[in-house]
Amino acid sequence: MKHQIYFTPGPSQIYYTVPDHLKSAVKEDVMCISHRGAAFQKIFGQTRSSLKTLLNVPDGYDIYFTSSANEIWERIIQNLVIESSHHFINGSFAKKFYQFAQSYQKSSTHTTVADGQDFEDLSIPEGTELISVTLNETSIGFGFDQNKLKQLREAHPDKLIALDGVSAFPAVGLDLNLVDTAYFSVQKCFGLPAGLGVWVVNERCFQKYEEVKKAGVVTGSYHDLSDLKSNGDKNQTPETPNILGIYLLGKVCEDMLFRGAKMIQNDTIYKATILYQALERSPKFNPFIDQKTTRSKTVIVANCEGGNAAILKALAAKGFVIGKGYGSYKDSHIRIANFPVHSKEQVELICDLIDSF
Amino acid sequence: MKHQIYFTPGPSQIYYTVPDHLKSAVKEDVMCISHRGAAFQKIFGQTRSSLKTLLNVPDGYDIYFTSSANEIWERIIQNLVIESSHHFINGSFAKKFYQFAQSYQKSSTHTTVADGQDFEDLSIPEGTELISVTLNETSIGFGFDQNKLKQLREAHPDKLIALDGVSAFPAVGLDLNLVDTAYFSVQKCFGLPAGLGVWVVNERCFQKYEEVKKAGVVTGSYHDLSDLKSNGDKNQTPETPNILGIYLLGKVCEDMLFRGAKMIQNDTIYKATILYQALERSPKFNPFIDQKTTRSKTVIVANCEGGNAAILKALAAKGFVIGKGYGSYKDSHIRIANFPVHSKEQVELICDLIDSF
Repeated sequence: MKHQIYFTPGPSQIYYTVPDHLKSAVKEDVMCISHRGAAFQKIFGQTRSSLKTLLNVPDGYDIYFTSSANEIWERIIQNLVIESSHHFINGSFAKKFYQFAQSYQKSSTHTTVADGQDFEDLSIPEGTELISVTLNETSIGFGFDQNKLKQLREAHPDKLIALDGVSAFPAVGLDLNLVDTAYFSVQKCFGLPAGLGVWVVNERCFQKYEEVKKAGVVTGSYHDLSDLKSNGDKNQTPETPNILGIYLLGKVCEDMLFRGAKMIQNDTIYKATILYQALERSPKFNPFIDQKTTRSKTVIVANCEGGNAAILKALAAKGFVIGKGYGSYKDSHIRIANFPVHSKEQVELICDLIDSF
Repeated sequence: MKHQIYFTPGPSQIYYTVPDHLKSAVKEDVMCISHRGAAFQKIFGQTRSSLKTLLNVPDGYDIYFTSSANEIWERIIQNLVIESSHHFINGSFAKKFYQFAQSYQKSSTHTTVADGQDFEDLSIPEGTELISVTLNETSIGFGFDQNKLKQLREAHPDKLIALDGVSAFPAVGLDLNLVDTAYFSVQKCFGLPAGLGVWVVNERCFQKYEEVKKAGVVTGSYHDLSDLKSNGDKNQTPETPNILGIYLLGKVCEDMLFRGAKMIQNDTIYKATILYQALERSPKFNPFIDQKTTRSKTVIVANCEGGNAAILKALAAKGFVIGKGYGSYKDSHIRIANFPVHSKEQVELICDLIDSF
């Protein structure tokens, strides 16, 4: 089988150090050790500590592990919302989170704009307890304007803000002080096997959790915030977790720290810029998001004249697997992941192929 | 570092083929592929099919994947119980499931016997919707008598029976027709890295799920039964799952099928028998469970005169890592896992060491 490189928006190409870390995991019995023993506690502590440095997590914010970002949507609704959250929806994933709130019978609200358009109206209903913002909408490549996030923070100091950092962290920098909780899964920018979600929460979330409890709302069971905290304080998890996933995440965080978060973020901007330029130069493609300030840096989405079949095939012939469009855009869009594992040289090659297409 | 063999009751020694399957996973890009593509669907389908054969899953029973057995406790309460479940509790894990029901504000009931004792009274409150039985209580090595399971089935044809198969399947055989739902995690008898739960449900569970829905109860979100089913019918999962875990499970199931479920179960009985005999011969130990019919075949628990420190140390010196006691038995019990990965020769060595201790 010819070697392929995955530029799909997640799961994506695994970080180039992962195969070696898997070998170490076997050698170090990472898959055999007890989740209640000192060896696991050390792994947990190291992963947390590396993540804190890499993401510049402020003091007073804690990190917990779940099985996916989907699970964190559910845990946020269970633990941090009594009656109503408000969701800024610009794409399928932001919408899914809103639907989770509906499944939990919350009277949540939303501001939805047409795909590709920016949010003009930042107003929020009075009773909103938690505001949901998707930093990088993976379905259509929309990047939420961080200035608007600041405006929301200033306008609503009494409300919690939850940030979906899926397919953004750590390739897109963000001051986490702007939000109360943020979360992501590891199969995107971290280049890791799927099956792990990372949940960052601050002290205000714990205060809100106490209110939710007091209101008599069910906050879940093993992954309710208090269980995550009482175990997390001991560098443990309530259940037997994806130990291998936590180990690999810690190792890849260390690799990324060696390269430097700023360097990764700058490389991301460079690669995004040349990809968008190539797409704009070509008569066959145009970036789906018009407004440059809201174009995703990590998931580059373009509309393809006459459908995406030909370009998918041409790139696959060179060993590059890129993503189809999401949902109704399945056949008309391409989505090119621009994650830390993707080198400038590879991206330049893709740009050349787009130019010659 | 000296090589060690883990006889801990989970996580435990990984199945001996796992390192090779990890190499194949890297080679086959298992960690890169999309969970919406044909390659993943093939993995999902193969794993399901091998599991069905290995566990002799009857027609009309479906298999879904979650992140842990803990999660399945939660999903059972959310999806299959409106007001009340009844729990047979003989140990910490059965009790935890009952506590999950309490967290979800159900008016669940329980029959609890003293640790190590058998259930004499099999009566169930009238309003019970679901009966919970733990086939193998990992905390104290208690095996639920399968004849009693039959009695429960016959006495309560109107109620669902949920069976906790953690640390039993596939080393302990069971006719799944006796229950409506069964579940386990893979880091026990399957010898796999933790982070995956397997949930078997029959059609009666789906009927009950419809009733729960109709009653207006919140059934969860992405892992509610209907979402698991609509995706599972396409060999997919609602969220991006632990793809590597599902792949490894399928591969290890194939390895186990090559050996044969019956052979694995017979070997388990042989190894359990000689372990219990060695413990009974020794003046320093006695099996925690007196009654032979309720002694676990897969988690052999013994009380240690004067504490477990000396025997743990003596076995560790020979490279055998066995488990401490659970909870309040931490220092007084030993727990020796007897899983398919553990060879007869290794177990015979442990018996010799117990004899000479």
